[in-house]
Amino acid sequence: MSIVVVGSIAFDSVKTPFGICEHVLGGAANYFSLAASFFTDVQLVGVVGDDFPETHLTYLKTRGVDTAGVKRQYGKTFHWQGSYSFDLNEAQTLKTELNVFNDFSPELPEHYRQAQTVFLANIDPVLQLRVLDQVQNPRLVALDTMNFWIEGKNLELKKAISQVDILFINESEIRQLAKEHNIVKAAKAMQAIGPKTIVIKRGEYGALLFHKEAMFLMPAYPLEDLFDPTGAGDTFAGGFLGWLDKRGEITFDSLKEAMTLGTVMASFVIEKFSFDRMRTLEPAEIKKRYEQLQNLSIGPKQALEFAL
Amino acid sequence: MSIVVVGSIAFDSVKTPFGICEHVLGGAANYFSLAASFFTDVQLVGVVGDDFPETHLTYLKTRGVDTAGVKRQYGKTFHWQGSYSFDLNEAQTLKTELNVFNDFSPELPEHYRQAQTVFLANIDPVLQLRVLDQVQNPRLVALDTMNFWIEGKNLELKKAISQVDILFINESEIRQLAKEHNIVKAAKAMQAIGPKTIVIKRGEYGALLFHKEAMFLMPAYPLEDLFDPTGAGDTFAGGFLGWLDKRGEITFDSLKEAMTLGTVMASFVIEKFSFDRMRTLEPAEIKKRYEQLQNLSIGPKQALEFAL
Repeated sequence: MSIVVVGSIAFDSVKTPFGICEHVLGGAANYFSLAASFFTDVQLVGVVGDDFPETHLTYLKTRGVDTAGVKRQYGKTFHWQGSYSFDLNEAQTLKTELNVFNDFSPELPEHYRQAQTVFLANIDPVLQLRVLDQVQNPRLVALDTMNFWIEGKNLELKKAISQVDILFINESEIRQLAKEHNIVKAAKAMQAIGPKTIVIKRGEYGALLFHKEAMFLMPAYPLEDLFDPTGAGDTFAGGFLGWLDKRGEITFDSLKEAMTLGTVMASFVIEKFSFDRMRTLEPAEIKKRYEQLQNLSIGPKQALEFAL
Repeated sequence: MSIVVVGSIAFDSVKTPFGICEHVLGGAANYFSLAASFFTDVQLVGVVGDDFPETHLTYLKTRGVDTAGVKRQYGKTFHWQGSYSFDLNEAQTLKTELNVFNDFSPELPEHYRQAQTVFLANIDPVLQLRVLDQVQNPRLVALDTMNFWIEGKNLELKKAISQVDILFINESEIRQLAKEHNIVKAAKAMQAIGPKTIVIKRGEYGALLFHKEAMFLMPAYPLEDLFDPTGAGDTFAGGFLGWLDKRGEITFDSLKEAMTLGTVMASFVIEKFSFDRMRTLEPAEIKKRYEQLQNLSIGPKQALEFAL
């Protein structure tokens, strides 16, 4: 079992009310890979510049991430600069320097092409479609996107979405994409164009799962100390798909487990800047928080005891 | 068993993206009473003007609400005018005409004073304290408030809060009151001044329960058609406390049931304007949605099947 992930590898410079960091390891595909690496084998596709330290790639490799698909190119690595106010739900982008990412065209190494699971992180939907042409019969394909593509490449994005099994998307973005404010109706509209599973990310309010006719509500893990929300969404997707790939079957129950594990992984990554928390994370901690989150959200189990 | 509720009885004029209504029955105490009346006996305290139709009081009485504590006074009834955009989480107040509510001073009829449960709806904390002087040994006292009192009567409000068992409060308001953005820390800060139970209302994102050391996360019921969120918070509190009063014991389990029933009752009231949905609501519908909500939010029950 393995997951191919295609997306950005970046340097991030981030300011939150709790601190500042400059040119640290970031990028959607990295966050995803690292989270998924706790559950399954990951095959990473992306591009870095000649300024990207070998130590970062070595670190990914020690986590079992295959970096054969990471191309090193002459120029600078993609750099994102952003800041958050106390409302950590919304990042303000200060600078996006695409650099080598500007001409990125994903090419999957031969041994990636039989991957069981594929995650198309948030990139140009034209590139997402190009990845789909290179894989052979994946069992599960998931896609993430953002407002930039909804506005700029709407048709291409819808074409890509129509070919995947799971759509990961933010609450405000599904409203924009579906042109529908009501979240239940928006999810159904997206199901109608292809994916039978829709995961709506709501930041500190958790996530919603729509799977065929069924729905599941997942609150976020309430943290007393959170530091930097960068990468939370991709880490969520990494935990989610990493688990499904390991689990090997897609049922409403395994999807609920995936929702819970995605939430758990995201709750860790935001405790520190960049990947700092992930570097020390132990499987036993994941298991413990999974159980805590189960308990926090398990409601009354019995039926109402009194007649109404 | 019975609940005394003290608060506003009003006419509301509301505009939402889905319609307009003028001078319909509203007010926190009314919304609370009606929801609680599905579970227990309610004793209402408030004031109305000479323009308040007797039919409204008759309607409350048919629901078993004791209106002996509703004073009729010369002048006009409290009138609130507000509007909502597509983001139904936040009302924009267009007009607040206090009218007879301006000189309201709650006086509890003799037979109200042994009530088991007391709900101090959102009114001047000075009046909330005056109610506490008039009740004899209630088993459970709960209080709701708003930014207006947090800003204008901060000390009095904190004094009132220090004397209650449960604080109901909006997410943005507990942040303001506790001067703490982190919601877990804000809840702990409020527990430290008195109430061991804090219920944080998050609109369409549900509610959080903090009870002593424990926490419970409750998502909202996702509706496809919602119409008017006015009264949702008080209806939530009505279902919540109505159930606890009927249940007769306060445990973490009965509080979880109360969170679920509060959510269910609120999900009904917002389906139509004013009390229109409540007028036709049947206990069987409450039970059915309670079960649906249980299912929507029950996560994976078993521990993780694989070693991590």
